[in-house]
Amino acid sequence: MLKYQKIAEQLFSFIKSNNLKQGDCLPSLNKLIQQYGASKTTVLKALDQLERDGFIYQVQGSGTFVRNIPDEHFINFNVSHGWTNDFTKTKMENSDVTVEKTLPTPLVASRLQCAIDTPVYKVQRLKKQDDKIFCLETSYYNANVVPFLNEDIAKASIFHHISDVYQINVGFSDKYFKVRRLTNFESDKLNLPQDSFGLAVHETFYTTAGDIFDFSENVYHHENATFYI
Amino acid sequence: MLKYQKIAEQLFSFIKSNNLKQGDCLPSLNKLIQQYGASKTTVLKALDQLERDGFIYQVQGSGTFVRNIPDEHFINFNVSHGWTNDFTKTKMENSDVTVEKTLPTPLVASRLQCAIDTPVYKVQRLKKQDDKIFCLETSYYNANVVPFLNEDIAKASIFHHISDVYQINVGFSDKYFKVRRLTNFESDKLNLPQDSFGLAVHETFYTTAGDIFDFSENVYHHENATFYI
Repeated sequence: MLKYQKIAEQLFSFIKSNNLKQGDCLPSLNKLIQQYGASKTTVLKALDQLERDGFIYQVQGSGTFVRNIPDEHFINFNVSHGWTNDFTKTKMENSDVTVEKTLPTPLVASRLQCAIDTPVYKVQRLKKQDDKIFCLETSYYNANVVPFLNEDIAKASIFHHISDVYQINVGFSDKYFKVRRLTNFESDKLNLPQDSFGLAVHETFYTTAGDIFDFSENVYHHENATFYI
Repeated sequence: MLKYQKIAEQLFSFIKSNNLKQGDCLPSLNKLIQQYGASKTTVLKALDQLERDGFIYQVQGSGTFVRNIPDEHFINFNVSHGWTNDFTKTKMENSDVTVEKTLPTPLVASRLQCAIDTPVYKVQRLKKQDDKIFCLETSYYNANVVPFLNEDIAKASIFHHISDVYQINVGFSDKYFKVRRLTNFESDKLNLPQDSFGLAVHETFYTTAGDIFDFSENVYHHENATFYI
């Protein structure tokens, strides 16, 4: 994790533990620079990250304020880095985890922008919040970038793991989504009747240097998933 | 429109007109400062806005690069300010526009954080892209903040109008969404069979100073709306 990301995490924790509400003011820039012993640039990057994630807003000449932070049962659709999950009281769990080293389909190869003989890790996980299934995730990691994955790793946060072990940090992602009828396989996994509708999300993840390392397709349970951004 | 927003718009136009692609480099910060005759802070704010909107990424010590910009038939789910629409070749249209001055329901009053005897403008619009209906929008504007709206204004961009006339600029929004069964009224409007599913979005808009001025509920046609962020 980069220094500004650590400061963003600490500031988020500060907001949560002090139970700050919409419109409450954060300490001044100079106070934050002192408090975190960081440069102005680094603190500003942390604030920009928190603003981008929707937790604060900055008013020119006036200060930095806390935004309405939704109840934990809502899924933050913009945040892929996952550290905010550390602060939720709800129980988040990956179940039915499978990991397979395989070759990409043409679609997956095109999304990963790799040759079709590039080895990839296919990871499938059911995501549960307080024991309710809300998402079936199918991810493909380019094995030339992420050399090793297994089920133990995939039960926890893969992004934390590859950041710690390979210094691969998520920079941004291209995310496409639409409402569609689920396949029978997807309905079964999500415990829904056949022909149910759900939100289907295609996401391509880039490192901070702009290299693609992961393509995911997520389908969400229409009753158990409410989102915010 | 604020100065940094104008620069963001011009940079976006520069990317489009030069047909820049994923990974292409933008001019250096110093060049941009010269080119736009603006301060470093203002140019950095413009770049941050474009980064937040998903059009560029900044690599520390390396430069600013263009991201994959999707085909115009996809709806940018993150962008509410609307100026990027000026560059699309597809035909965007608001039809079946109705504007009514009324009192808010308890839900609307709570979302606008106003008293239930506050006058509001209720604006309903069908949104079409290349003559295909993709969204039914129902918006409520606090009439103490936005003193006047009518159908002519609502046929074009309301956000442009209130920025020009009242200097009300959109700062950020709280956006909640889920997949649900549409009401009969909604299905009819979207030309869908009854009991169709769609994406329902609740959005509360704040000015740059953090004041609420608009609450909208949008429902999207599941076949005619594909999104990206």
